[in-house]
Amino acid sequence: MKELELVFDRIVQRVNINLREHEYDVYPLVNNLIPLNQMTKFYAFYGITPHHKLNLQFRHSSLSGSYFLGKCQVTNSILYKSDIRGDELKKKGDRFQFGDFDIPINSDEKIKINDSFLIKTLVHNNSHDPETPENFFIRDTISTHYANIHGSPIDGSFLGPFSTVDLTTMRDCLIGAFSYVQAGEVSHLNIEPGTVWVRSPDNFNFLYRHPVDRLNNYIYFTAGAQPQGVFIDFVNSRKESFQRIFDVVNLESSVPVPDSASLDRFSVIKPKTHIDENVLVAQRAYLQNAWLGKGANVQEQCYIINSRLEGFDITAHGAKIIEADLSKNVFVGFNSFLRGRPKARLSIGQESIIMPHTIIDIRKPLTIPANHLVWGVVENEKDLKTNGISLNDFSKITSTLVRGNMTFEGSGSSFVTAFKERIHHILEANGAFFNGNSKRGHAQRNQNISFNMIQPYPVGDTHGLYPTITIKP
Amino acid sequence: MKELELVFDRIVQRVNINLREHEYDVYPLVNNLIPLNQMTKFYAFYGITPHHKLNLQFRHSSLSGSYFLGKCQVTNSILYKSDIRGDELKKKGDRFQFGDFDIPINSDEKIKINDSFLIKTLVHNNSHDPETPENFFIRDTISTHYANIHGSPIDGSFLGPFSTVDLTTMRDCLIGAFSYVQAGEVSHLNIEPGTVWVRSPDNFNFLYRHPVDRLNNYIYFTAGAQPQGVFIDFVNSRKESFQRIFDVVNLESSVPVPDSASLDRFSVIKPKTHIDENVLVAQRAYLQNAWLGKGANVQEQCYIINSRLEGFDITAHGAKIIEADLSKNVFVGFNSFLRGRPKARLSIGQESIIMPHTIIDIRKPLTIPANHLVWGVVENEKDLKTNGISLNDFSKITSTLVRGNMTFEGSGSSFVTAFKERIHHILEANGAFFNGNSKRGHAQRNQNISFNMIQPYPVGDTHGLYPTITIKP
Repeated sequence: MKELELVFDRIVQRVNINLREHEYDVYPLVNNLIPLNQMTKFYAFYGITPHHKLNLQFRHSSLSGSYFLGKCQVTNSILYKSDIRGDELKKKGDRFQFGDFDIPINSDEKIKINDSFLIKTLVHNNSHDPETPENFFIRDTISTHYANIHGSPIDGSFLGPFSTVDLTTMRDCLIGAFSYVQAGEVSHLNIEPGTVWVRSPDNFNFLYRHPVDRLNNYIYFTAGAQPQGVFIDFVNSRKESFQRIFDVVNLESSVPVPDSASLDRFSVIKPKTHIDENVLVAQRAYLQNAWLGKGANVQEQCYIINSRLEGFDITAHGAKIIEADLSKNVFVGFNSFLRGRPKARLSIGQESIIMPHTIIDIRKPLTIPANHLVWGVVENEKDLKTNGISLNDFSKITSTLVRGNMTFEGSGSSFVTAFKERIHHILEANGAFFNGNSKRGHAQRNQNISFNMIQPYPVGDTHGLYPTITIKP
Repeated sequence: MKELELVFDRIVQRVNINLREHEYDVYPLVNNLIPLNQMTKFYAFYGITPHHKLNLQFRHSSLSGSYFLGKCQVTNSILYKSDIRGDELKKKGDRFQFGDFDIPINSDEKIKINDSFLIKTLVHNNSHDPETPENFFIRDTISTHYANIHGSPIDGSFLGPFSTVDLTTMRDCLIGAFSYVQAGEVSHLNIEPGTVWVRSPDNFNFLYRHPVDRLNNYIYFTAGAQPQGVFIDFVNSRKESFQRIFDVVNLESSVPVPDSASLDRFSVIKPKTHIDENVLVAQRAYLQNAWLGKGANVQEQCYIINSRLEGFDITAHGAKIIEADLSKNVFVGFNSFLRGRPKARLSIGQESIIMPHTIIDIRKPLTIPANHLVWGVVENEKDLKTNGISLNDFSKITSTLVRGNMTFEGSGSSFVTAFKERIHHILEANGAFFNGNSKRGHAQRNQNISFNMIQPYPVGDTHGLYPTITIKP
């Protein structure tokens, strides 16, 4: 344990140095967040397929519960329930488009994570930073419960619980709880909790702030205590179901899975779940009485309970859908919390977009029309009028729209187009359009993953640490 | 699978080249022995402790079910349910006594196994070859079901089922089923099935041959078929019990285990088993209604069923003890098969030595006196008279003793002394004499082993193969 504690202290110091201008001390926030003595009991794992080149290594370090795919290096680092799914890393010979630049990729892209520290988080796909297209790094980064670093470089930053930084290049930032930032290159910012910020320089700027009093009910985080609120209770009350999938070495699926679909071995599948063609169910997803139509995907740490997704629906990392009916092509953004009730179901019309970090929590039935955009907190029809708009109307904005806590500036049609393109890319990458021959994606390629389960030193000074493991395919 | 088949063919060819002077073709013997398509379903594992330096690597290779401890390198090799327990490897700075030589050890001893091929076998402790004290190698070696290479270098040899080569340096040999060879440096020999040969040049020579007709009942092996007989049936009928221990990641012990004892996580423990102080239960051991007194050990692949071992008893690798009562300090040699019946129990008096590869299979109660030496096949009192003698009488031999199929030449007292010394070493190494502070052995040191579970590529040409894994502690 001694060396594990040293690793922890060293990383906290590094992050504090990076955050010094904010006069921020992360120590009291994270001191009791990581169960160092628990970490010695967990095993870690990583996926192996012939499609992803592996070169896993780690030093001075610890892991517990992982799922790296693609090359990897972890140096001087504590990780904890990390996913880091490098299955969209660029390959030597690829070309990366950025603005007017057509950048040739000189070597296979590598995950690095040097000096880092991540907790209960996932980091996805590839570097979107044109300055380091071959280098998918993260450094000295402390991210708390269910924070979501989605792709790309990040530096000595602190991410609050259920926060997301998306497609981003970020340095020395503080991201508050449940904040979503997709703003390109940002540095030295302190983002308040509950901020939803989507910016495309010269095109548009979407900014929303969750009302603090309502947000605190869902997620509240302060120094010296564990994160609290509905989100935490929801997740914790389902924690036990995950125990079984970690206890056994191999797990057979309890439901029929078509040849074109894939269901991660580390997902929880409860009865009456239906999996259609081209469906992708990712790691640590939780399905209970979930009907998943063709091409639907349920990404890492998503929960689908008593709900029906007609097909080509996207449930982005960390989103929860309870007692709801989604028509085709609905997009539910990162960490969104959509809760209907048994006698108050939520219906979402086709092609609608639920913005990342949206909370819909209803006690009477609610229908979101087709082709609608929804954000913020929605508890009823009235909220929906303030925090929703048809995509058609939104596309007409050319300068500014202010609605409740939301401010939009720029081109509405650019915003909608960018969103639609990304949705299309996600479906494509996940294999939703697979036709039996081509348009293969993660749903088809991730079907056959072997997992290596690795354990830390059981006693002594190195207790809880793992030796460095180099893999040569 | 394609590459796995290539690895297999390449190794068979190598062994055939080594055995060319015997005009021996191992292909028909081993062709159907290895379930290549099954191997792709197994996972492999290796132990991690702070006491054993690891540097696991393998190339072109396959593994399934393993338990390396200490450094390791495997090149171009299929292994299968191997144990290879390198926990007595010599360390830099150690000194190795051989005859009049006092050999300084220049570097940590390493397991190598280059070009090799082992099936369902174990290889134990360290190199006893004074020519390569830092190099624990095995090459091009095909060993069939439950063969037991005990320590040390070996070369392009073929080992039949349930055969043992002990403390040996061996080159290009054929060892028949159920043969036991402890004869120092031997090469280019063809050992008939059922041979028990213990030689110490200039000191003594013990040679016994199991009668072929009686042996065939227990183990029969011929080209084109799986090994057959009582031994195989016995092991196969208990195979399913092992499934559970491989299915789960971590297994809590179902019986109380004293702090000074250790029970391997990959052993099967059935009800009413008692584990006393300083007991060692090794990997793939099977205990059912087994009472194990202080300092007793049950080594790899041993079975103890409805039996009581009073204490400081040794059950050497692969031995089976059924419906028997052993007094203190009884030694049961490798692969011995001791079967009493519920109404015909076997009793063994203290300090007795059951030679390796002994079969005792009784239908009426039988008592082996204290301080007795037993070998061969014993089904009743009459057999015991032929195949047993008091250690005292045996010690008096100075030239030759012929009894039934056994011939002894040389010094009986040297033989007995050498045996007693080895028994003492085994108990000491296994921690039987641990006093709470010192005399620590495997029973104490092997308590905390983490296991890494590794899986082969799931599809494609490399299906069933593992990538090379280098570990830097």
